[in-house]
Amino acid sequence: MGLFGRLRRRKNAQTPYCAAVVPAAGSAARMEGQDKILTILGDYPVLVHTLRALNDSALIQEIVVVTRGDLIVPVGQICRDFAFGKVTKVIVGGDTRTASVLAGAREVSGEAELIAIHDGARPLVPPEVVDAAILRAAECGAAAPAVPVKDTVKRASGALVEATLDRDSLFAVQTPQVFHADLIRGALQKALDDGAAVTDDCAAVERIGMTVALTEGSYENIKITTPTDLLIAEAILSGRE
Amino acid sequence: MGLFGRLRRRKNAQTPYCAAVVPAAGSAARMEGQDKILTILGDYPVLVHTLRALNDSALIQEIVVVTRGDLIVPVGQICRDFAFGKVTKVIVGGDTRTASVLAGAREVSGEAELIAIHDGARPLVPPEVVDAAILRAAECGAAAPAVPVKDTVKRASGALVEATLDRDSLFAVQTPQVFHADLIRGALQKALDDGAAVTDDCAAVERIGMTVALTEGSYENIKITTPTDLLIAEAILSGRE
Repeated sequence: MGLFGRLRRRKNAQTPYCAAVVPAAGSAARMEGQDKILTILGDYPVLVHTLRALNDSALIQEIVVVTRGDLIVPVGQICRDFAFGKVTKVIVGGDTRTASVLAGAREVSGEAELIAIHDGARPLVPPEVVDAAILRAAECGAAAPAVPVKDTVKRASGALVEATLDRDSLFAVQTPQVFHADLIRGALQKALDDGAAVTDDCAAVERIGMTVALTEGSYENIKITTPTDLLIAEAILSGRE
Repeated sequence: MGLFGRLRRRKNAQTPYCAAVVPAAGSAARMEGQDKILTILGDYPVLVHTLRALNDSALIQEIVVVTRGDLIVPVGQICRDFAFGKVTKVIVGGDTRTASVLAGAREVSGEAELIAIHDGARPLVPPEVVDAAILRAAECGAAAPAVPVKDTVKRASGALVEATLDRDSLFAVQTPQVFHADLIRGALQKALDDGAAVTDDCAAVERIGMTVALTEGSYENIKITTPTDLLIAEAILSGRE
């Protein structure tokens, strides 16, 4: 039975076993020397918010965190201190994000039919965004949350506008990006073998000809990259309280 | 002498006379009943921040505010209370944003060679962003600030990804969008005559075959559309203090 047949059968019975892989090895380059996943947001490090969101999801059964060698100790400590019972492993990643995610995808349990890849630096992902992506991937093999692009986007070259893109068809994609486990492992390995630069995990899947479904994301599901992003995240967090 | 010849000559002598047109008639639809330009940000209404940024620019000589009929009184009051000396007129706009901007562009003084169109709901525009767009438009006739798109953007149809766009060539365009006065009046009139939906004023100029230059924008130059945007603006404002 093929990939989609198997997933469809499972869904009728129950949601497939889903493992989360959390790349949390981001360079500190844009965060003024402070590692963004350990930066305090509200009362806790960014990564605590991220892992709590995943740990609390009824659709996620295990979590593998992929980080840098020098962060293994603080990240492991966070997982113990906050008793994130679903975190089964904290491992050291590879030289690139793609290599790190693939390393994580190879460390999930053999039971995992779906793998949800979620940026360690997206601490504010709402539970419904996680659930929607997992449920859609269970149906079709590859899904990711996205939000309509609010800005007017221009394609430009040499600081001259070439075209205004049709905003109605543009979506900013977020994480968790959820895939059938074998599909994403194969797609990431192929991207690595080909030396392909992929901006997100969906792109690795798209480039081997598979279709990715989009689910409803949230404008609050921001990725923390700059100090301004951290201020924005603080504001969103305050707004929730 | 043609358009560009005249502007180039002027630039060698001095920056051309620049009038700002501020569309400040946004519907309150997405702001939970509160008009976004009158919403308090920090200690003042959003529009006060916006007008102060423009009023303080040495490159802007006059400001025309275009608003809704029911906001003429509070908007006029703001201009007097805060002594924005460059605001020469507060007028009622048209049925669409394009019609409103054109109405404003027709009310600027005859001396104006450049018109800088700036969203009333972009209160945090840094002075250097305003200056860069005006100076570039003085050189080439049409310029707007933009920032590289940070998200991975997908083109999608029916919630299925069609393509991942090349992020390096994508820019989110902001305001002030600055144009030679006759160029923008003609372009907006043509868009209205053609019933063309243009997402920004640059698009009106692009569709008549003119090239728009992009200048350096700022991620802080956000447009306030939702309550979350207001929280984000508060955070950026706090970060500046």
